[in-house]
Amino acid sequence: MKYAKIISSGMYVPQKIMTNKEFEQITNMVIDPYFTEQIGINHRHISQSHETPTFMAAEAAKKALERINMKPEQIDLIILGTDTPEAVSPPDAARVQYLIGANKAEPLAFNVNASCANGALLLDIASRYIALGDYKNVLVIGVYAMTKFLNWKYSWEALFSDGAGALILTADDKPGYLGSVSRCDGSWWHNWGIYMGAGTMNIEGIDRGLHKLDLRAAYPATVNEEGWPVLINKLIEKCKISKEEIGMMFFTQVRKKTILKVMEILGMSEDKTHMIMDKYGYTGSACVYMAYDDAFDCGKMRNMEGKVLIFLTSGVGFQQVAVAFRW
Amino acid sequence: MKYAKIISSGMYVPQKIMTNKEFEQITNMVIDPYFTEQIGINHRHISQSHETPTFMAAEAAKKALERINMKPEQIDLIILGTDTPEAVSPPDAARVQYLIGANKAEPLAFNVNASCANGALLLDIASRYIALGDYKNVLVIGVYAMTKFLNWKYSWEALFSDGAGALILTADDKPGYLGSVSRCDGSWWHNWGIYMGAGTMNIEGIDRGLHKLDLRAAYPATVNEEGWPVLINKLIEKCKISKEEIGMMFFTQVRKKTILKVMEILGMSEDKTHMIMDKYGYTGSACVYMAYDDAFDCGKMRNMEGKVLIFLTSGVGFQQVAVAFRW
Repeated sequence: MKYAKIISSGMYVPQKIMTNKEFEQITNMVIDPYFTEQIGINHRHISQSHETPTFMAAEAAKKALERINMKPEQIDLIILGTDTPEAVSPPDAARVQYLIGANKAEPLAFNVNASCANGALLLDIASRYIALGDYKNVLVIGVYAMTKFLNWKYSWEALFSDGAGALILTADDKPGYLGSVSRCDGSWWHNWGIYMGAGTMNIEGIDRGLHKLDLRAAYPATVNEEGWPVLINKLIEKCKISKEEIGMMFFTQVRKKTILKVMEILGMSEDKTHMIMDKYGYTGSACVYMAYDDAFDCGKMRNMEGKVLIFLTSGVGFQQVAVAFRW
Repeated sequence: MKYAKIISSGMYVPQKIMTNKEFEQITNMVIDPYFTEQIGINHRHISQSHETPTFMAAEAAKKALERINMKPEQIDLIILGTDTPEAVSPPDAARVQYLIGANKAEPLAFNVNASCANGALLLDIASRYIALGDYKNVLVIGVYAMTKFLNWKYSWEALFSDGAGALILTADDKPGYLGSVSRCDGSWWHNWGIYMGAGTMNIEGIDRGLHKLDLRAAYPATVNEEGWPVLINKLIEKCKISKEEIGMMFFTQVRKKTILKVMEILGMSEDKTHMIMDKYGYTGSACVYMAYDDAFDCGKMRNMEGKVLIFLTSGVGFQQVAVAFRW
């Protein structure tokens, strides 16, 4: 058995910025004065028309490859996670495989969608491919183009930002990958989503607004605030690790106060997590890879030898996945 | 290490049938006289408005559960493969988890999209989850609602039919799962697909026809006819099996003559494969699970003890995946 190990990262962020003030002008909505403080977001990055999901994903992937001088043909598997795809079919992953110049080597490439829980899930799937010994280098990419699905008329739309994050994992003889835990409850499926698809992708669907992100019923704040610590504790137990061994935890970057509260509930200091919503807004499937990339470049991943690294991602559906690696 | 073993199957097919003659009346196209002979399709099943992807997927899954008296709460993981999803987000898999009554147990549920290569790919992912010992029972579902994305004005649209197929895999101490091989070349991404998504899911996109399945450039017939035998031989080599051990092979049910030609190239007799396009048309992500279910019910899976079972699926992107199991 082999163990997956994270060896590189990259991100892509659109240049165009929309400040809170600009958001208010466009939407005619007033952003709650506590929004920036509670959520941690004061501006957002908006992808332009050429910045499609596959373009952003490929740019992030290229940076991850360049960082370690890896050639695209060395990649054995590409997994792309998104719930804002460029097309219904074929999967964006195949297009990205071509855009990064990996197509001659013909590595397997597929899309996964567990909404914003993609970040940890893709790392888990990649690690299970690597575990059996027949896949060596796996590229995982999370991409988010949610601003292309906004109505620009609700205050909660101030959350969303676009971008892509990529990580490269490779096979090693020692952990590496320690394990994963998850929760999913599909009874919440109707709460929040983009409900256009088979049978509704037509003029009538557009008249009903199905082509835009729709918040029909809010999730209780407790889903994350109470749910994340439970999941982390399950992960700690399953992977037989201790809290003291944890060097860094990356959470879905959806709300600053939730992350701080979760760290408090877990009895862990703030420096064991890293947040990027102040820089990049909320970038869904991309956010934990972007957070990792940012933490790495900030020097926060130094002196991590032997420590445990955790990714916990959470999304509509709902679903939550957490995964642990020994650094 | 544990080995995945297929223990049940189920399918759902819409009742409504459209004959070749009815297709010609609706589309004003004449179906090539060789179509039925070459492709093997003489009618198609058309999902009605209540027969959404998650509905069909849940019905197929319930049948697979009922066949072995398994309770939904015994399922640890649900993987749904489709390129005709009910919604952009959340994933259909979460909705199906709820519809089959599995949500109380909160099993992980996510969507995968490798277009019509989903069938073999989902079995591969499921097997890798089972391999590490922490997931026991995995439900994989392929669902296809492509008739909801047709223009009904091209003769090649006569191929498509709707339906769902489900398999249940469980952990065993001996193989079971033997391995997989794949090919993907994203340089073909633009040839054939439903190109509506982030940035184009709007009135302009509909005016451009992006919400419908679009055949922009045909794939050469050789992609499957020459590609499949190459992949089967790679699989045989990787899994260290012999052709003589193969008991049954299920191929993407897209063209009868291709399957027969591939069997001839491989030097294998026709009774080692099973075809259902005459009964159910072409059902994409669902077709190999439906073929397995049909073969099982026809008694063709008897006396398979110790034999090897192969699934090979092929889809736009393009991508091809083949996976082998010891029965």
